[in-house]
Amino acid sequence: MAGGPSTAELAAAVSGAGGLGFLAAGYKTGDALREDIAALRALTDAPFGVNLFVPREDVIDEAVLAAYVERLREFGELGEPRWDDDYWQEKVDVLAVERVPVVSFTFALPDEAALRALRDAGSELWMTVTSVEEARSAVSLGFDALVLQGVEAGGHRGSLTDSDDGEGLSALALLRLVSSEFPDLPLVAAGGIADGPAVAAVLAGGAAAAQVGTAFMLSPEAATSGAHREAIGEDARTALTRAFSGRTARGIVNRFMRDHEEAAPVAYPHVHHLTSPMRAEARKRGDRDAFNLWAGQTHRLANPEPAADIVRRLSADAREALERASRRLND
Amino acid sequence: MAGGPSTAELAAAVSGAGGLGFLAAGYKTGDALREDIAALRALTDAPFGVNLFVPREDVIDEAVLAAYVERLREFGELGEPRWDDDYWQEKVDVLAVERVPVVSFTFALPDEAALRALRDAGSELWMTVTSVEEARSAVSLGFDALVLQGVEAGGHRGSLTDSDDGEGLSALALLRLVSSEFPDLPLVAAGGIADGPAVAAVLAGGAAAAQVGTAFMLSPEAATSGAHREAIGEDARTALTRAFSGRTARGIVNRFMRDHEEAAPVAYPHVHHLTSPMRAEARKRGDRDAFNLWAGQTHRLANPEPAADIVRRLSADAREALERASRRLND
Repeated sequence: MAGGPSTAELAAAVSGAGGLGFLAAGYKTGDALREDIAALRALTDAPFGVNLFVPREDVIDEAVLAAYVERLREFGELGEPRWDDDYWQEKVDVLAVERVPVVSFTFALPDEAALRALRDAGSELWMTVTSVEEARSAVSLGFDALVLQGVEAGGHRGSLTDSDDGEGLSALALLRLVSSEFPDLPLVAAGGIADGPAVAAVLAGGAAAAQVGTAFMLSPEAATSGAHREAIGEDARTALTRAFSGRTARGIVNRFMRDHEEAAPVAYPHVHHLTSPMRAEARKRGDRDAFNLWAGQTHRLANPEPAADIVRRLSADAREALERASRRLND
Repeated sequence: MAGGPSTAELAAAVSGAGGLGFLAAGYKTGDALREDIAALRALTDAPFGVNLFVPREDVIDEAVLAAYVERLREFGELGEPRWDDDYWQEKVDVLAVERVPVVSFTFALPDEAALRALRDAGSELWMTVTSVEEARSAVSLGFDALVLQGVEAGGHRGSLTDSDDGEGLSALALLRLVSSEFPDLPLVAAGGIADGPAVAAVLAGGAAAAQVGTAFMLSPEAATSGAHREAIGEDARTALTRAFSGRTARGIVNRFMRDHEEAAPVAYPHVHHLTSPMRAEARKRGDRDAFNLWAGQTHRLANPEPAADIVRRLSADAREALERASRRLND
């Protein structure tokens, strides 16, 4: 939900309704994060979380990246294809002061100093993983919970390495594999969970909680752009792509994805910065064929309701789904 | 489970323990199917099902196929890369006489005459699909139930067209999407379901039943080869491949897959026949790097238990998982 849909209002509404709202801190400065936290705290006293992108400078293929830059020249406004650390240290410093209830991490394992600082600040620390191997790495650092992101999820894959040999474990498959190895660790299932029965499913599958993203993107509290909202309401196919950011992410298929997917390099956040002005322009003029329409596989199940109503509906429907399944098994 | 692991003993043991055992009729003649049905009926009076591969002659790229044949020359024993109809009509004729409780179909929509013959024989008719579009096509033919095969599943994808633009819906995502569109249709969830909590998950997610494959492949009743059993017990990655059969299927990654995946054409069952003698040889000498190790994403959860014990364990654990999830929601 970083880079657009996530707002303090959305997280506050989710937390206020009994969920655990998250602020997506990715792409934000430390100051912007501090302001978001203040805005959220002005709206609710309920617990919430903050998600951080963890920077890691990978070796990239400069030639493939250069060719991709050339390829996109036709689009006019492009940014500089550069690495950056996404304001990592300043956000860690803000969080060390702000003492938020939960901090979750995505893209790489955080350094020990950051983990210590945030643990000292009293935050619960959660790590996003997409495979059993990644879960093992995370467990060795002592996280309080793992977010298990299935291949269904919209937006960036939270893989520790963006390789092509990933087998693309679904949320439920990953949940069962990790749960069988770490039965006592709280596991949060993510990916394609957009209604109550899906929440019930992952809880029955052993998750301590379900993480829901796309299902909130049509809520009035989300800052989802108009063209993006339209696409989410439709019966449109999603796919994984590196075309927009240089890192595998799931979005609703559009022309830019079809045209450039095969040429897109593994180069994050270089390609993110490269396409950023182009995407902002397309978003502004409502051209859904030229920016990233991040969405999970079940995006059609999203409803344009207030976020608090979504939380209550998911919760009530999950309860009912569990009761129905129990009755069926006992018949 | 066709082409190896499926046996009458396995299906009978599953049905005898309260599951609904299936005979995989794929690759078998009408006579062989009749014998399997007789063998099963000698072992149990319980209901069971038969799964049929539905033939369809697709246009294939002969040049790419010819290049693939050349590429595999080094392997010595190869078969003729030809189309065939998998003894379709003779199996339909056998089933029209045998009147089995359930017939399920995979790969293509069956012709109207076959559907009528099997319906007249009193069989329930189930169709395997992997997307919402495919579900709609199946519903228009009036099937009694749909088998929703998620991308997690081992063996061949049951897609009606073997395209690369598939978004690879997980079992749970597919279940929620199809269920929201056809709330009254019985849906059987398949793919990556290998233990009780996963069964509970899809039941909570709205499935009428869970279809389980890989979890039975280590049972003594299954005819899984020795090298295949060994691989299933291990912590080994799976991936989708066309290298063995010319149709996308999931198996444990081995050398043959790595070496030939990129060159493999969309040409089923041509490539199946091409590699069949080579695979039989490799299976015989226990060389797991040269035959298809079909397995779902959660194959590591398979246990070497009698099939009836697996059915009972899955059922008991599913019940417990639902109760635990209900308690957690009501706390």
